[in-house]
Amino acid sequence: MTALDSSPLARGARPPESDTVSDEKAVAESAGLMARLGRLWDRDRPPSATEILPLFQARLTDVAANKLARTWCAAYTAADGKRRRELLAGLAQVDAGLQPRGDRGLAFFKRLNALPDGLRFLVALRADMLRWRKQVAGLQALDKDLESLLSAWFDVGLLELRPLTWDSPASLLEKLIIYEAVHEIRSWDDLRHRVAPDRRCYAYFHPQMPDVPLIFVEVAFATQMADNVQVVLDTAAPPADLDKARWAIFYSISNTQPGLRGISFGNFLLKRVIERLVEELPKLRFFATLSPIPGLVDWLSRLSAAEVEAIVRDKGRTRAGAPDGARWVARLSKAATGKSSEVVQRAGMKLVAHYLMTMKNNQPIDPVARFHLGNGARIERLNWAADTSAKGLSQSCGMMVNYLYDLDDLDANLEQLGQGKPRVSRGIARIA
Amino acid sequence: MTALDSSPLARGARPPESDTVSDEKAVAESAGLMARLGRLWDRDRPPSATEILPLFQARLTDVAANKLARTWCAAYTAADGKRRRELLAGLAQVDAGLQPRGDRGLAFFKRLNALPDGLRFLVALRADMLRWRKQVAGLQALDKDLESLLSAWFDVGLLELRPLTWDSPASLLEKLIIYEAVHEIRSWDDLRHRVAPDRRCYAYFHPQMPDVPLIFVEVAFATQMADNVQVVLDTAAPPADLDKARWAIFYSISNTQPGLRGISFGNFLLKRVIERLVEELPKLRFFATLSPIPGLVDWLSRLSAAEVEAIVRDKGRTRAGAPDGARWVARLSKAATGKSSEVVQRAGMKLVAHYLMTMKNNQPIDPVARFHLGNGARIERLNWAADTSAKGLSQSCGMMVNYLYDLDDLDANLEQLGQGKPRVSRGIARIA
Amino acid sequence: MTALDSSPLARGARPPESDTVSDEKAVAESAGLMARLGRLWDRDRPPSATEILPLFQARLTDVAANKLARTWCAAYTAADGKRRRELLAGLAQVDAGLQPRGDRGLAFFKRLNALPDGLRFLVALRADMLRWRKQVAGLQALDKDLESLLSAWFDVGLLELRPLTWDSPASLLEKLIIYEAVHEIRSWDDLRHRVAPDRRCYAYFHPQMPDVPLIFVEVAFATQMADNVQVVLDTAAPPADLDKARWAIFYSISNTQPGLRGISFGNFLLKRVIERLVEELPKLRFFATLSPIPGLVDWLSRLSAAEVEAIVRDKGRTRAGAPDGARWVARLSKAATGKSSEVVQRAGMKLVAHYLMTMKNNQPIDPVARFHLGNGARIERLNWAADTSAKGLSQSCGMMVNYLYDLDDLDANLEQLGQGKPRVSRGIARIA
Amino acid sequence: MTALDSSPLARGARPPESDTVSDEKAVAESAGLMARLGRLWDRDRPPSATEILPLFQARLTDVAANKLARTWCAAYTAADGKRRRELLAGLAQVDAGLQPRGDRGLAFFKRLNALPDGLRFLVALRADMLRWRKQVAGLQALDKDLESLLSAWFDVGLLELRPLTWDSPASLLEKLIIYEAVHEIRSWDDLRHRVAPDRRCYAYFHPQMPDVPLIFVEVAFATQMADNVQVVLDTAAPPADLDKARWAIFYSISNTQPGLRGISFGNFLLKRVIERLVEELPKLRFFATLSPIPGLVDWLSRLSAAEVEAIVRDKGRTRAGAPDGARWVARLSKAATGKSSEVVQRAGMKLVAHYLMTMKNNQPIDPVARFHLGNGARIERLNWAADTSAKGLSQSCGMMVNYLYDLDDLDANLEQLGQGKPRVSRGIARIA
Repeated sequence: MTALDSSPLARGARPPESDTVSDEKAVAESAGLMARLGRLWDRDRPPSATEILPLFQARLTDVAANKLARTWCAAYTAADGKRRRELLAGLAQVDAGLQPRGDRGLAFFKRLNALPDGLRFLVALRADMLRWRKQVAGLQALDKDLESLLSAWFDVGLLELRPLTWDSPASLLEKLIIYEAVHEIRSWDDLRHRVAPDRRCYAYFHPQMPDVPLIFVEVAFATQMADNVQVVLDTAAPPADLDKARWAIFYSISNTQPGLRGISFGNFLLKRVIERLVEELPKLRFFATLSPIPGLVDWLSRLSAAEVEAIVRDKGRTRAGAPDGARWVARLSKAATGKSSEVVQRAGMKLVAHYLMTMKNNQPIDPVARFHLGNGARIERLNWAADTSAKGLSQSCGMMVNYLYDLDDLDANLEQLGQGKPRVSRGIARIA
Repeated sequence: MTALDSSPLARGARPPESDTVSDEKAVAESAGLMARLGRLWDRDRPPSATEILPLFQARLTDVAANKLARTWCAAYTAADGKRRRELLAGLAQVDAGLQPRGDRGLAFFKRLNALPDGLRFLVALRADMLRWRKQVAGLQALDKDLESLLSAWFDVGLLELRPLTWDSPASLLEKLIIYEAVHEIRSWDDLRHRVAPDRRCYAYFHPQMPDVPLIFVEVAFATQMADNVQVVLDTAAPPADLDKARWAIFYSISNTQPGLRGISFGNFLLKRVIERLVEELPKLRFFATLSPIPGLVDWLSRLSAAEVEAIVRDKGRTRAGAPDGARWVARLSKAATGKSSEVVQRAGMKLVAHYLMTMKNNQPIDPVARFHLGNGARIERLNWAADTSAKGLSQSCGMMVNYLYDLDDLDANLEQLGQGKPRVSRGIARIA
Repeated sequence: MTALDSSPLARGARPPESDTVSDEKAVAESAGLMARLGRLWDRDRPPSATEILPLFQARLTDVAANKLARTWCAAYTAADGKRRRELLAGLAQVDAGLQPRGDRGLAFFKRLNALPDGLRFLVALRADMLRWRKQVAGLQALDKDLESLLSAWFDVGLLELRPLTWDSPASLLEKLIIYEAVHEIRSWDDLRHRVAPDRRCYAYFHPQMPDVPLIFVEVAFATQMADNVQVVLDTAAPPADLDKARWAIFYSISNTQPGLRGISFGNFLLKRVIERLVEELPKLRFFATLSPIPGLVDWLSRLSAAEVEAIVRDKGRTRAGAPDGARWVARLSKAATGKSSEVVQRAGMKLVAHYLMTMKNNQPIDPVARFHLGNGARIERLNWAADTSAKGLSQSCGMMVNYLYDLDDLDANLEQLGQGKPRVSRGIARIA
Repeated sequence: MTALDSSPLARGARPPESDTVSDEKAVAESAGLMARLGRLWDRDRPPSATEILPLFQARLTDVAANKLARTWCAAYTAADGKRRRELLAGLAQVDAGLQPRGDRGLAFFKRLNALPDGLRFLVALRADMLRWRKQVAGLQALDKDLESLLSAWFDVGLLELRPLTWDSPASLLEKLIIYEAVHEIRSWDDLRHRVAPDRRCYAYFHPQMPDVPLIFVEVAFATQMADNVQVVLDTAAPPADLDKARWAIFYSISNTQPGLRGISFGNFLLKRVIERLVEELPKLRFFATLSPIPGLVDWLSRLSAAEVEAIVRDKGRTRAGAPDGARWVARLSKAATGKSSEVVQRAGMKLVAHYLMTMKNNQPIDPVARFHLGNGARIERLNWAADTSAKGLSQSCGMMVNYLYDLDDLDANLEQLGQGKPRVSRGIARIA
């Protein structure tokens, strides 16, 4: 799991995500008005195929079918995980039996969308569907319908980019704490620091869910490209002088809605934010991230000694007794927090550079690299001991990377990526 | 052209709609921010196919392609009708040549939608496309793409139903004057009367176009079902007592965006408005329209004497010298404004009832009947001399009809309509 | 009556102001919530002195006294002019009888202000009090209390300067039509023109009466100092190019609340508006009015031939048969609309210059001059045939004047005015 | 210092209030726009009397004097405590020297109020003036002027009562943490609990300071009159069922602005809140506080043994060796947290009842009793061990009191209080 593709439920302080636990609270919250309007499904067994058929077949304005839809949603909302799976299985079965199938699954979801708070419900529902799609027959077909609708309904042209500040509603800011997936927000003091006057935080919102930040980015400003996230996060640091700042540093980006997985507004986020920043702070010149390397340790641990050697040493055969990847992980982590020899550090950098440029199926294997390189950014600089938190050490031996967003180069970079060659700075090229 | 499917440009005081005149003003207004951002296409010839190809093929986040899109929109906005047709023809040609076509037309429109004010532009663009689709090769295929996107983007679940009152912005209320397609709003006094405290006016809005009412309905309240629209429109009449009112009368419904033709949120409008009214004014019991019969005179004028006789007289052969439909139109119109014999009036009613119940391709031939019966309403009552304005006389010899919305019967009524039998009240059944 | 001191009731299309007609509608509107809350005083006679004594003497938080206050306000609101005078007379009598009087009148008004919509009521009440203060014994003392409170409550530091645009609520813009006291707004088209994108309109509002513009100014922009108000008011004229404009022309200023007579926020209005304009349109360089001369004809009509001669001719004795002031009025008015000889025009200018500089009790006698010179502006230029409307001719033989606001000179100008010498431009000095 | 008359600076976690420390931060914040506009007084010495004379004597619209006022405010804002005292001393000296003094002090403050954010500045300025008024000659006269203006400008009729909820801006809610003067808000979790859906929090705001709650009250709901504040404050307690609640409990009231001491909107607060609650929750029947008794321990500590005996024992002489007040304080505090004998508890209650009913200068000596009895509430019930926090024990040996607000009785209760007899319930009467 990566910062950009993570469910809020997966974070430490919250219940672990699992295939059998449904995102009940999210669904329950989404139900809002519906819960008041719909009557609960008051029987012990899920509705039969015949009973729910009108949800797929009746006209979208059919009064009875729409009452039924409310009832179904209310029942789903009130249900536990087991019952929800039964309800979804019932849906999938009806959907599969329709001849011709046509766009009847679409009809079902459009009907729900027309209910009060329907869109919110659907986003929560899809989170459940994704969780269970491999276990419940027919769910994948149904999910394909829902995904295509959500793709249209969350088209970036329908979204609103809004800043979040300390003057935003507390109930909204609280969601940053809940959803922040990269660098945990530890307290309200920490939160205040992230939306302080010398920072910016932007989020995409959907007009039908104005209290839910769909994706948000946290921005710091500096006179140089940031190389250490602890410094960025330090609530006691003096505020930045926006007048002197030339660099905008995107140091945290989090998706919040697992139910919107695969919907692609994220790619627009940083471009739009850069446009806004340029307008507000015309003295800014450079835009870069300070990003984690979440897959490094996993990848490195699996390398044999020979594979490591091939990367680290420019030439020659593998020395006898050379450490394998797992031992390198330990060595690098230790060096990050203690005294680090230059040799170790250089080897670490080489490994990281190699890892970040490794592609599979024509895409970088590191999920964060995949996001930023896929946006047209380039790998600009590696930073040793840049995140020595437990998470930073366990993911990437404390190293971090800057991706540089140069608006004039994004398209060309991206074209080069398409040819299997991620763009990197000259410094990185030298290392690699 | 009907009240529910009319372009604002078709009204008397404005330039006539035609196949060669483009809705330039609407596009120009839509362009807003774009005009500022994009540079005008500064050459004399339209762009070549090669030049615009990236609009279809580049990634949606491609910086250069998106700049090009702004330029194209700005050029289109600034163009006259002739040049616009050329620009559209150029698009259609490129679109047709793509192999495989796939969803590249979709890509073009999605790219535009992601621009500032893009949705507004697309709605205006489609008005042009509909106007020229028969003359410009390939435009129909392109329009099909745009229609499917607009269908999703204007899904009723994404729209907002909002009341319009005298406290609404003047610039917004002015649009009621411009777009009212049934009973012209003659002055600001008239307008104030339509949104007076004893009336209601509701419109659907899209969050990306918050200043554009997409469709609106005007509602009056009464102790009885209204039978005369001049009384309803009389600005000097005393205000209704909302506490005593039991009837809500929908006396005018207007679509405003020709570019949204075929997108179906209209069917939800009255149901949603009824829900709102029930909440706000719980003493209301009945919901009905007072509607024009826009196609009556056209239809009647074409009937032969024998056809008229067959309708008017329950049995028997056509009398020699019996008037044909066109003469009946004259006779009925005269009777509506002068002294009307009961015989003539009864014959008129029979003809109207017959007309309203006439179906073609399984749908009522009268466009307003098509809308309301298609919503599940029933034909409740015919009203003689109910609209003796010039328009009322020329369209329907001064007669009007009430459609009744009984939420409990809508589905059953609609089912019956599907079997070719429009639901009517007992009174209408007797007449017919 | 002048533009700056006029009641909206005094305008043509509305009932004439008189000493016996109360501003009932304004009070009724002000009562809003109160009418719902208070019970009407249901007896035929006004309350006795004993009954209303608690309104003056009870603590401000006294529950019973505050209920009584609501009742009194509701009764006043519902009363006609005669009964209102009785109610005011009753108040004044109690107030006069209090020993020691102290600030008990203040207590009465503070109690009312604490009611819902109380401030609005008090402003309307004072309009009545001013109307009748000479006829109702003791009303003047009571009014003095109310004036001192309103002075504090309408302190300019508590007011909000807000622009009015075509996007403002129709119900608010309508008030411009009602209250415009200088150049009548003849239609909604005219109104739209006054708040068009190439114009500005600013008003002061009180937070407790956010729907009431207390005073407003209409501003046009030009490359030169405007010299003809018909041109400014012409709705068909092409829009101004704000980028090229260097002059802001204040062409209409209207007070709206007769109940706030003597409260002095008006003096701040233009200074604040100038600050706003400078911020929004930094290319502006000059700020001037195009103002009526409302007292000219009245003043001139009373001059004898000798007095006129003394002004018009620089030296020498009165010629026999020289026309007196009244005949000069006729002559000037005729010249304004027909062919004007230069001699007549020059004489007219001299008379106007003399009039505008005439002081009484250390103040200019012309009410508009009093306002602008009292703000520190100077008399900049006279304009012949600048307002040939019926009103313009009847007030000032069609002439108008520009007052120039030069922020750097206002204080010095004002000092000079205090010494009896209104500041004028060199051009005016030459004429005079 | 009491809950209702406390400065936010006096709370534990903040710097202690003192006569020499100015509320610099508040003034600095108030300065906002001013700091940008005004130039700093750039010299080392305070301005001379001659220099600041125009602040008192020039017209309120004088451009130069108003620039000077901005400079003065900017200088004051930037100054430390010592320099501020000098600046205030300079003002007071000029003010004292004016002949006749008249309302020139008023003119000074009105001038400041007309500046951007002027009112906010004046409120902060007065906090300083109150702090130093005994040490700086002439400051008391000046403060009298400011107090009279603030009295008018903060007239309750100009204030707005607004609810605070979890959807309010975080920057606003944060002020509850800062200003809460009765029961410290320990964390954001605690804060969320105080504005949870089953609670209410209302505050008065001034339209010119919309981000500053002037006074706020926290309300809990219950089926019975609350008798223990730890229960009320317990964030882990289950939410109240608003449908079943019959009691509204005002458990915390805090003034926030030391600069508004003596301005009396506080007396309206609870009445207005009760009106709101009755509207929103019509099932509520009773309104009471759960209040601290801040002066009890101070008072009791000073009583001699004889005095205590006279209160506790209904008759008889003082026993030899009977404990004095100070020893009773220890005894009661110990009993509150440990095992409490009924005898001790009964004695404690008697002492409290006696204390709460003790008057001086015709007012209750306990500051909280003074506030609530002065509103017309009555002493309803005493609660043993109701606040066993360190503060509760040290102020009132853990005891608390309910004051009951019965709207029908407030006036009568207050009249009785005026005669020196605070109204109490029968239960209290029995104890006393």
